[in-house]
Amino acid sequence: MRLRNKKNANSIVNHSNYIIKNFKEHRGAWKQVFGNDHEIHIEIGMGKGNFIIKMALNNPSINYIGIEMYDSVMVTAVNNLEAREEKINNLRLIRMDATEIEDVFDKEVDRIYLNFSDPWPKARHSKRRLTSEEFLKRYDNIFRKDNVIFQKTDNDALFEFSVESFLNHGYTLKNVTRDLYSNMIEGNVATEYETKFAGNGIKINRLEAYLIK
Amino acid sequence: MRLRNKKNANSIVNHSNYIIKNFKEHRGAWKQVFGNDHEIHIEIGMGKGNFIIKMALNNPSINYIGIEMYDSVMVTAVNNLEAREEKINNLRLIRMDATEIEDVFDKEVDRIYLNFSDPWPKARHSKRRLTSEEFLKRYDNIFRKDNVIFQKTDNDALFEFSVESFLNHGYTLKNVTRDLYSNMIEGNVATEYETKFAGNGIKINRLEAYLIK
Repeated sequence: MRLRNKKNANSIVNHSNYIIKNFKEHRGAWKQVFGNDHEIHIEIGMGKGNFIIKMALNNPSINYIGIEMYDSVMVTAVNNLEAREEKINNLRLIRMDATEIEDVFDKEVDRIYLNFSDPWPKARHSKRRLTSEEFLKRYDNIFRKDNVIFQKTDNDALFEFSVESFLNHGYTLKNVTRDLYSNMIEGNVATEYETKFAGNGIKINRLEAYLIK
Repeated sequence: MRLRNKKNANSIVNHSNYIIKNFKEHRGAWKQVFGNDHEIHIEIGMGKGNFIIKMALNNPSINYIGIEMYDSVMVTAVNNLEAREEKINNLRLIRMDATEIEDVFDKEVDRIYLNFSDPWPKARHSKRRLTSEEFLKRYDNIFRKDNVIFQKTDNDALFEFSVESFLNHGYTLKNVTRDLYSNMIEGNVATEYETKFAGNGIKINRLEAYLIK
């Protein structure tokens, strides 16, 4: 994602109650943050948050945690959330680097969403892709029971890499398509990227990956 | 498949009532061969026929057509079928080269099974693979409504080629796994190859490809 510098972004992000600052302290006890034992779905790389905010509103009995590394995009999500009259109780946000994800969750996540992740096109950066073997190993430790990952991307190379990586890690894939908007999944919630891409005729790849234990 | 010369194979195959000899004459009218309008599922490369015979017995309200190019393996299927006391009414066999498939079916097939197809590993032979773009185009003309193709193979290179080929042709993939026996599909019917491979710990790739119209 191209980043513009936003004035006061850091200050705004730091003062929102949606943002969990001492996030490593909740490892193994995220149920307590939400005050219930509903499923926990996380989005790694939530960007400006359109997707996860809409998901939280549509599915009040699922708890959502949005993760993002950059203040400059996260601030848009925070501003949108703070401008609402009613608080969304089933949503929290974390500003962190996803490589630390095992320090934050311990067998308590039910689903991961990866939407339009950074493709890291250079081979020497392949370990940074959120579907690399390195990341899949990290995810193994954060899922409560079955591993479930939903991915969308406009980047064909990342998608092909991901398909291979998931299958080699033992995942079964479902609803794999190169063109989401020709093979529409019921109840699809669009991200801000997706709306723009689909409007420009850019094809969106999508898959669901399952590792049933 | 390694072929042994079988004495009288051609004569045995030619004299079975299961074998449809003038198969191009039934193009567009396969319902009449079966005398009903049940779905028609075909297996391209049926080999010795274990899979399609079992499928026909398990699913009496689906019509099955097994296609095979070589007398020397087809003869085993025919011998097994002729040795049965009762005829299997929902099964027919065709000895033909699959490149001619459009001359045999016209918008009347509901599902294709591709089990342990020849991988044709050399790049210059890639057009002969049963999941090549060339074959997928042929299949477009034989399906009645939606395209549905179920594939199993022990050959990883063929599987990776097939995943890419299906996705590029607009198919959505479901139940994609590198290891069928660790992610068992309910009601799986094993081929003769599969039983041997699985027994030897060789992993079996499987997918379902759908092109919904």
